[in-house]
Amino acid sequence: MIINMNLGKNSYDIVVERGSLGRAGELFDLNRKVLIITDDGVPEEYSKCIAKQCKEPFIECVPQGEESKGFGCYQRLLSFLLKKGFTRSDCVVAVGGGVVGDLSGFVAASFMRGIDFYNVPTTLLSQIDSSIGGKVAINLDGIKNIVGAFYQPKKVLVDPDVLKTLPLRQISSGLAEAIKMSLTSDKALFELFENQDINENIDEIIVRSLEIKRSVVEQDEREKSLRKILNFGHTLGHGIESSENLGGLYHGECVALGMIPMCGKETRERLVRVLRKVNLPTDIQVDVDSIISAMNHDKKFDGETVDVIFVNTPGEFEIKNITKDELARIAKERL
Amino acid sequence: MIINMNLGKNSYDIVVERGSLGRAGELFDLNRKVLIITDDGVPEEYSKCIAKQCKEPFIECVPQGEESKGFGCYQRLLSFLLKKGFTRSDCVVAVGGGVVGDLSGFVAASFMRGIDFYNVPTTLLSQIDSSIGGKVAINLDGIKNIVGAFYQPKKVLVDPDVLKTLPLRQISSGLAEAIKMSLTSDKALFELFENQDINENIDEIIVRSLEIKRSVVEQDEREKSLRKILNFGHTLGHGIESSENLGGLYHGECVALGMIPMCGKETRERLVRVLRKVNLPTDIQVDVDSIISAMNHDKKFDGETVDVIFVNTPGEFEIKNITKDELARIAKERL
Repeated sequence: MIINMNLGKNSYDIVVERGSLGRAGELFDLNRKVLIITDDGVPEEYSKCIAKQCKEPFIECVPQGEESKGFGCYQRLLSFLLKKGFTRSDCVVAVGGGVVGDLSGFVAASFMRGIDFYNVPTTLLSQIDSSIGGKVAINLDGIKNIVGAFYQPKKVLVDPDVLKTLPLRQISSGLAEAIKMSLTSDKALFELFENQDINENIDEIIVRSLEIKRSVVEQDEREKSLRKILNFGHTLGHGIESSENLGGLYHGECVALGMIPMCGKETRERLVRVLRKVNLPTDIQVDVDSIISAMNHDKKFDGETVDVIFVNTPGEFEIKNITKDELARIAKERL
Repeated sequence: MIINMNLGKNSYDIVVERGSLGRAGELFDLNRKVLIITDDGVPEEYSKCIAKQCKEPFIECVPQGEESKGFGCYQRLLSFLLKKGFTRSDCVVAVGGGVVGDLSGFVAASFMRGIDFYNVPTTLLSQIDSSIGGKVAINLDGIKNIVGAFYQPKKVLVDPDVLKTLPLRQISSGLAEAIKMSLTSDKALFELFENQDINENIDEIIVRSLEIKRSVVEQDEREKSLRKILNFGHTLGHGIESSENLGGLYHGECVALGMIPMCGKETRERLVRVLRKVNLPTDIQVDVDSIISAMNHDKKFDGETVDVIFVNTPGEFEIKNITKDELARIAKERL
């Protein structure tokens, strides 16, 4: 199945197809120098499979985890491209999750002011979310995604077969983003989470989530307005993620927690049941003030207030501009 | 005089006006946090003049020279923005020459994936060339402009009064770019250089050069084709600049030398007379091979060949794709 992201001259296709990893050479233009960037948590076989299909492949493997999204790796990869004589006609392929995709995308966006970028997301989270939409970035001084660009890939290849090697907890983390999108934009998908077997429906969950994200990004490429709904659950979620008192929670787990206070009562109860069904956390013992203070560098905060998404009924949303204090009060009451 | 750069949603005005520095607060939106980036070669009074017109100004001064266009300054300025709590609604103002403009522009382009950027070029070179066109970048591993973005300013303010504090050699260096533009695109401007007093006509030289650059950039924002004519003299010029055997030549001086071999015989003689008139170098004792080898990282080289601009008659140009060897032969014969 091909989903076309229609962004004028920045348009591109997202190919969702089991086994498509082995067809990368047909789907991408790899008849040139290709830097494949992956991390040591991704099975080696995936980057090697792509490399076999390139004219002149190079593989760079960064350590798994958020630390690789820093200036160190960024600068090292740019130097590598220079040293290997990459030109504007060559390209970068990301093979991994969100960290690899964000880092590789910013490398491709900024090397020689932009060379071609392909993304092969290998986690559920990146397959349905971070791999599309063109937000690429690295971290600085402990703040996530603070330095980056809006830079669209030339093509994205989603092969659901790679999920078979993904730990269950990572699957759950990815499902959190799909649940998020269903809550703001697709009642039927939310009901699928409530009533159907998740594993059996994973391809449909991926495609429907991508369709929602596509529609939102097409309408608002540079996050001026509508795109804010993709941040549902993320304002608090990022605070939870940044809060140094909490280690070890995955992004999707933080988003799961971040969504709960932002729902009306009945929807909140339904959400909690769905989160439990897919093994996502639904409560947390933590000082909400420390979460709020960790949010001070959130790009979404424009001075003292923030636009927050509320969902009263699955499939519908409301954007409210509230103060940090109000957000803290809601979080304390409901989390 | 206002020159409008028409680039769709990236459009902006270039204001050319004596004394406009004192009107920055009217011309820019400075009613927010403003990071003014300058260097220690620029008279302090210029950045202070802008700062007085801002609601919440911060001034960061980097050392004069190409070294400031490295990852060190880039990362330090981004950290500064973070530390001072800059949001997406705040802005960066560059006050200086090309180094300050390129560095500041890439800081603005990448902080939070892009915040507003204003440019106040204070050298003739940056007033007629680097301040417009949206090419921002930093250097890496000794290679110039290898990491960056295409990112348009919100507005550019050109105040010819600031040139009164600019050393004469820097004026000459700036004139090299104006001569370059006249040779490819404006016969009458080239004749002005031949027949008129330069100082008396400096405002006209600035405006006509900007008009040429505007027209080229509007037709080719991302340097796919026509924009290559702006590289007239630069392919060899960058090689001369990068060649470690040569220290101390200014960018415009290298461009002046780089243009000479790329002209037909008669035009070459006229060009040499003009270059001498404005105190630019016309010959150099150097091993051309070392210049060619220094060009290996030039972004314009696509593998073994490069598109080079030739001028047989002032105001007309030809693009030829030639090999490095041919370029070396021409340079040896004519330089």
